[in-house]
Amino acid sequence: MRRRVGVWLFGARGSVATTTVAGAAAVAHGAPPAGVVTEQPAFAGAGLVPIDRLVFGGHDPAETPLSKQVERLVAGGVLPLGLDGLIAAELAEAERNLVVLPDADSQDELVRRMAEDIRAFRLRNDLDHVVAINVASTEPPYQVQYDDVAALREALRSEQALPPSSIGALAAFEAGAAYVDFTPSTSIRPRVVRDWAVERQLPYGGQDAKTGETLVKSVLAPMFTARALPVHAWSGTNLLGGGDGATLADPHAAESKSVSKERVLTELLGGEVPGEVHIDYVDPLGDWKTAWDHVMFSGFLGVRMTLQFTWQGCDSALAAPLVLDLARLSALALERGHVGAMPFLGFYFKDPVESTEHALTRQYDELLRWVHAC
Amino acid sequence: MRRRVGVWLFGARGSVATTTVAGAAAVAHGAPPAGVVTEQPAFAGAGLVPIDRLVFGGHDPAETPLSKQVERLVAGGVLPLGLDGLIAAELAEAERNLVVLPDADSQDELVRRMAEDIRAFRLRNDLDHVVAINVASTEPPYQVQYDDVAALREALRSEQALPPSSIGALAAFEAGAAYVDFTPSTSIRPRVVRDWAVERQLPYGGQDAKTGETLVKSVLAPMFTARALPVHAWSGTNLLGGGDGATLADPHAAESKSVSKERVLTELLGGEVPGEVHIDYVDPLGDWKTAWDHVMFSGFLGVRMTLQFTWQGCDSALAAPLVLDLARLSALALERGHVGAMPFLGFYFKDPVESTEHALTRQYDELLRWVHAC
Amino acid sequence: MRRRVGVWLFGARGSVATTTVAGAAAVAHGAPPAGVVTEQPAFAGAGLVPIDRLVFGGHDPAETPLSKQVERLVAGGVLPLGLDGLIAAELAEAERNLVVLPDADSQDELVRRMAEDIRAFRLRNDLDHVVAINVASTEPPYQVQYDDVAALREALRSEQALPPSSIGALAAFEAGAAYVDFTPSTSIRPRVVRDWAVERQLPYGGQDAKTGETLVKSVLAPMFTARALPVHAWSGTNLLGGGDGATLADPHAAESKSVSKERVLTELLGGEVPGEVHIDYVDPLGDWKTAWDHVMFSGFLGVRMTLQFTWQGCDSALAAPLVLDLARLSALALERGHVGAMPFLGFYFKDPVESTEHALTRQYDELLRWVHAC
Amino acid sequence: MRRRVGVWLFGARGSVATTTVAGAAAVAHGAPPAGVVTEQPAFAGAGLVPIDRLVFGGHDPAETPLSKQVERLVAGGVLPLGLDGLIAAELAEAERNLVVLPDADSQDELVRRMAEDIRAFRLRNDLDHVVAINVASTEPPYQVQYDDVAALREALRSEQALPPSSIGALAAFEAGAAYVDFTPSTSIRPRVVRDWAVERQLPYGGQDAKTGETLVKSVLAPMFTARALPVHAWSGTNLLGGGDGATLADPHAAESKSVSKERVLTELLGGEVPGEVHIDYVDPLGDWKTAWDHVMFSGFLGVRMTLQFTWQGCDSALAAPLVLDLARLSALALERGHVGAMPFLGFYFKDPVESTEHALTRQYDELLRWVHAC
Repeated sequence: MRRRVGVWLFGARGSVATTTVAGAAAVAHGAPPAGVVTEQPAFAGAGLVPIDRLVFGGHDPAETPLSKQVERLVAGGVLPLGLDGLIAAELAEAERNLVVLPDADSQDELVRRMAEDIRAFRLRNDLDHVVAINVASTEPPYQVQYDDVAALREALRSEQALPPSSIGALAAFEAGAAYVDFTPSTSIRPRVVRDWAVERQLPYGGQDAKTGETLVKSVLAPMFTARALPVHAWSGTNLLGGGDGATLADPHAAESKSVSKERVLTELLGGEVPGEVHIDYVDPLGDWKTAWDHVMFSGFLGVRMTLQFTWQGCDSALAAPLVLDLARLSALALERGHVGAMPFLGFYFKDPVESTEHALTRQYDELLRWVHAC
Repeated sequence: MRRRVGVWLFGARGSVATTTVAGAAAVAHGAPPAGVVTEQPAFAGAGLVPIDRLVFGGHDPAETPLSKQVERLVAGGVLPLGLDGLIAAELAEAERNLVVLPDADSQDELVRRMAEDIRAFRLRNDLDHVVAINVASTEPPYQVQYDDVAALREALRSEQALPPSSIGALAAFEAGAAYVDFTPSTSIRPRVVRDWAVERQLPYGGQDAKTGETLVKSVLAPMFTARALPVHAWSGTNLLGGGDGATLADPHAAESKSVSKERVLTELLGGEVPGEVHIDYVDPLGDWKTAWDHVMFSGFLGVRMTLQFTWQGCDSALAAPLVLDLARLSALALERGHVGAMPFLGFYFKDPVESTEHALTRQYDELLRWVHAC
Repeated sequence: MRRRVGVWLFGARGSVATTTVAGAAAVAHGAPPAGVVTEQPAFAGAGLVPIDRLVFGGHDPAETPLSKQVERLVAGGVLPLGLDGLIAAELAEAERNLVVLPDADSQDELVRRMAEDIRAFRLRNDLDHVVAINVASTEPPYQVQYDDVAALREALRSEQALPPSSIGALAAFEAGAAYVDFTPSTSIRPRVVRDWAVERQLPYGGQDAKTGETLVKSVLAPMFTARALPVHAWSGTNLLGGGDGATLADPHAAESKSVSKERVLTELLGGEVPGEVHIDYVDPLGDWKTAWDHVMFSGFLGVRMTLQFTWQGCDSALAAPLVLDLARLSALALERGHVGAMPFLGFYFKDPVESTEHALTRQYDELLRWVHAC
Repeated sequence: MRRRVGVWLFGARGSVATTTVAGAAAVAHGAPPAGVVTEQPAFAGAGLVPIDRLVFGGHDPAETPLSKQVERLVAGGVLPLGLDGLIAAELAEAERNLVVLPDADSQDELVRRMAEDIRAFRLRNDLDHVVAINVASTEPPYQVQYDDVAALREALRSEQALPPSSIGALAAFEAGAAYVDFTPSTSIRPRVVRDWAVERQLPYGGQDAKTGETLVKSVLAPMFTARALPVHAWSGTNLLGGGDGATLADPHAAESKSVSKERVLTELLGGEVPGEVHIDYVDPLGDWKTAWDHVMFSGFLGVRMTLQFTWQGCDSALAAPLVLDLARLSALALERGHVGAMPFLGFYFKDPVESTEHALTRQYDELLRWVHAC
């Protein structure tokens, strides 16, 4: 019998999650897998689970039906006209696997209940592996006080020791699932959370998928470096609507995002470069995002020059195929018994866990090497 | 005694050549070598000739003194204020090494006389190696009729068998110099010209330096490919003034340029992509160039998105440090006894001779590997 | 009984015409009249015919049903989802008023038959006035040989004396209709065609609606003039798909367009300004259009500066409300017995007939003055 | 004997002031008066004082010689090479008329001393009129507590009742000078300061010159309004270096600027429009400024479209010719005995005193009408 892989989404009714579930169904119905990197010929033969063997489930605080979300995304131009009819069966199946976040008296109990939800999902659907991916709204930064697994375990009984994203990560590990953070939230940032994964002999990856402005930065910055052109200032303005925009309109939440965005430039250009990055909520943009970047650099003998770019993209439609990639690649890591950080997934992230390589082409080559390593 | 390398420039009084000579002198006086790739730490220890050991000479049909050209470039903001005073001695020295293109009754004789000029330059300056680099104006495409060295040699006695750029290449080979074409002209395109180099046991490289729009393309196109994002159209408009602009205002000459520009996209994206590339002469831009590119691509399930960029650069200030790089690298190839094409220089070119790799980061890595190969 | 005005469209099944008919129906159903200038408070009280009293008909060489075109435009994002259902009755009514271009042995007969079609439309629908508007594809330039109405009348019997757009204009005049050219085609350009209108005591207007790049130019150029900032070069690239794009991919047809585009800048800036205007057909853009303009100007003491803009619009959705405006305003001119050119419509056009004012704000004020003149 | 007009600059050693003084001298030496609106033919015959009859003086807290500032501006590309030599005499003359801000024990005394400086300038140079123009750095907003001239006069003896810009305005009025505020500072904002001017029978004008982004907005916004195109969001990012940039990097000072910037859009578009305006200090830009604006609007039936523009200008070179205009026009107002606000100068300002017209073309027409009114 062919293997099946479960994809457990935190934030399972959001735009990214809905587009992922709908898109996987569309691909199963024959839509071209544009944006799915692992469907390229270079990845053939690596034994990745086929997209139509992925089974979706997840947690979400909200209860809006997936089919409503699909309708909204069709109206917003993110999903194609007529898709809802085509994939009704798949949506209904995923809907059955979605659960609301459980209530609990302590964070310890919350981890346990969430892990039970994930284990139930695995049993009910007869899954070989489960991969949990965090696509929930970005949280504000959070200072975790514990650096030892035992101490943390103890604290969870009586304190708010962790933010929701880290609780989700622990639940995944307790359920034997791989965990990938698609967002810049706290989740696996604390050393202690990563130690927990290692204790459970599980892989983890992330963070903060690069889908737009930062993706472009991750190829332009190495260009300046390779050509020895000094960059004097790099300024950026991001306009975005939708739920993501509303969240990031809160400067506290935006802080998590800005920090991981900045890491890319600093590490690629070999030092801090002046210039601010703005994230503006522009409600009428809906699920669309526009970024403008202005780069001042100089050539020979200090002549000042400029590169500007404008990126106009639909984040969900860029993110969803990468969620499919990450699910397939993490399932492969589970099969191979990989434990701990997955730095070879850096290609997907602004803030790659346990890696300092940010140049896209090199990250791509590294990913391919890992995929074909066995 | 320390070695000295001669750099023989075809088009030795043009903007690129003048900026190269002036810039090398400025660097010798302590200016930071911005844009000179081979001055980066990654190239240390490879035994490249120091910039202050390069000696410049060259052919040019014009006779405007270099110092006049420097003045013009200072006024146009390409070279910094006050540079002319600082480097007067170096300019005078280079001036003594410049000769007008000789008259000749046949192309055969022309090759011989030009080769004598190059040999005289080597002797007079006591040079270990000479590298010839073509930075003359772009020629219109030219169909060469000969594919055999002997037949070509014969034809040169009685016919206009080759365009000026190829004559220059043969003269370099006859003088024992390496040859690099910085332009999209015919030069080493014909197989027979490259065979001639091999007969003389010499290396050659080129063509058409990527300094602006195409440089950016060579990192953006691999981004779309790596991310499996289909590109539906790529359109570009280049506005440029100066001598280069005036030359390319001639659609016939522009054709050479457009052809090599297109190669990059076609090979990087794995097929032809709709979209025109315009090269407009806008006299008031002087030595500056503005390029606007508009890329239509799609994400998951066919959602259409857009990336636009505007590049505002000064071509001479981008090109000159690369000329220094190419001189140093070709001198190294001569020392190493390298014969034939230098595909490892693809990092510098839109139309890399005997290479199909166009992704900038990979080209950079390939260059570094060659440099450190011995 | 309330008056009804007929709107006869040449090119009645094209994107602009379809959007006009569908949009008028949508407005009648309560959609906000965005883009319809004459629905603004400033136009109240002028006695303009209400939009729901407009009756549509027209000629077209094609026979694709309007409802098919509406479907296509909904799929392309030009018309909103669900519109087709809402306005089915109105589409069916308009469909009944559309006729194919008649066959005829001479241009004289063609004019007669087309005029009969228009008269039949008026009678059948019991219309007070008919306004004919040309929204057909742009024709190549055409040199008309006659400058006298009688001679032209004679020539029509035996020669191809006029291009289709001018034949349409004559048919309108023969049927007692006002005529407005929304395109840069020949139509009313020849003096003799305008004389024909005057003989019939009818008004005419046009040409070449400004909906995008030129609209922006018509406010930016007066800014430079008012501020005494010399403009050194103005370059533009237009990317467009759809039927309009395919037509303009033919350089011959594009010529008509470029000529009227250039008139705006030359007259607003008081002289010719260097810089090319490209019109590129980019099929995947569909009904959308992207224009990039680059303006080089200087400030005090010759300092060079730059303004660039990128316009991304949907031509049909910008054009259709203007067609409604022009129909209502021309009907008012008919009512007022206005004969000859309508220069007060210059606000709408790149190449305003018998007017040299191109500054948008002044054109707007002039329009308002005429509207409230009685 | 021909009349001479004094131009008293607050902030007389800053970039705008220096460019104004240097530029007026250059024009007197034959440089074309680019950017000087009042030198256009439309203003001929109005009796404006010739530029070479303007005499410059002013207050500044700093003591850097004007000639040093000119050198700096030449190096930064704001003033042309070689200008310093040409205009040395004029610079020296202006230098003699510059004084440091006097010390004083009370604001009352400060006003008196500053007024004495201005009167001394008038006598020493035998001037017919003096016009004071504030080109000093932008101050943070300031809440003035007095609304009655007598009460304010009393308060000045014992309190910090006013910010420096308003003190300058009072000094000008006490010296019988007209006053124009080129900045968004408090100056004439309080009713009581304007009443003071009226008591002295003097004219005043301002505020916050529109030289870049806002200038463009003031023609684009009326375009959307005239065409009935709803604007859904207007976002802007301004990058600027130099002294102005450093000042505006202080969010408190930037507040003054943002407020007047926003007024333009709100009043032109008939209501508040979402979208933020960022002002970022990017030191390497020097005296240059780059603004990017992104406008989301919709056409017929709600189709979303976009206009973006990038403005790259040198503020001082845009501002200085307007300072000359304002000096000449205010001198004319003085001659004509104009008392109180000069709303007809709205053409020059983001926040025109006692006017709500922001559409540039209409402001221009209003200015011309006033100029030719007598």
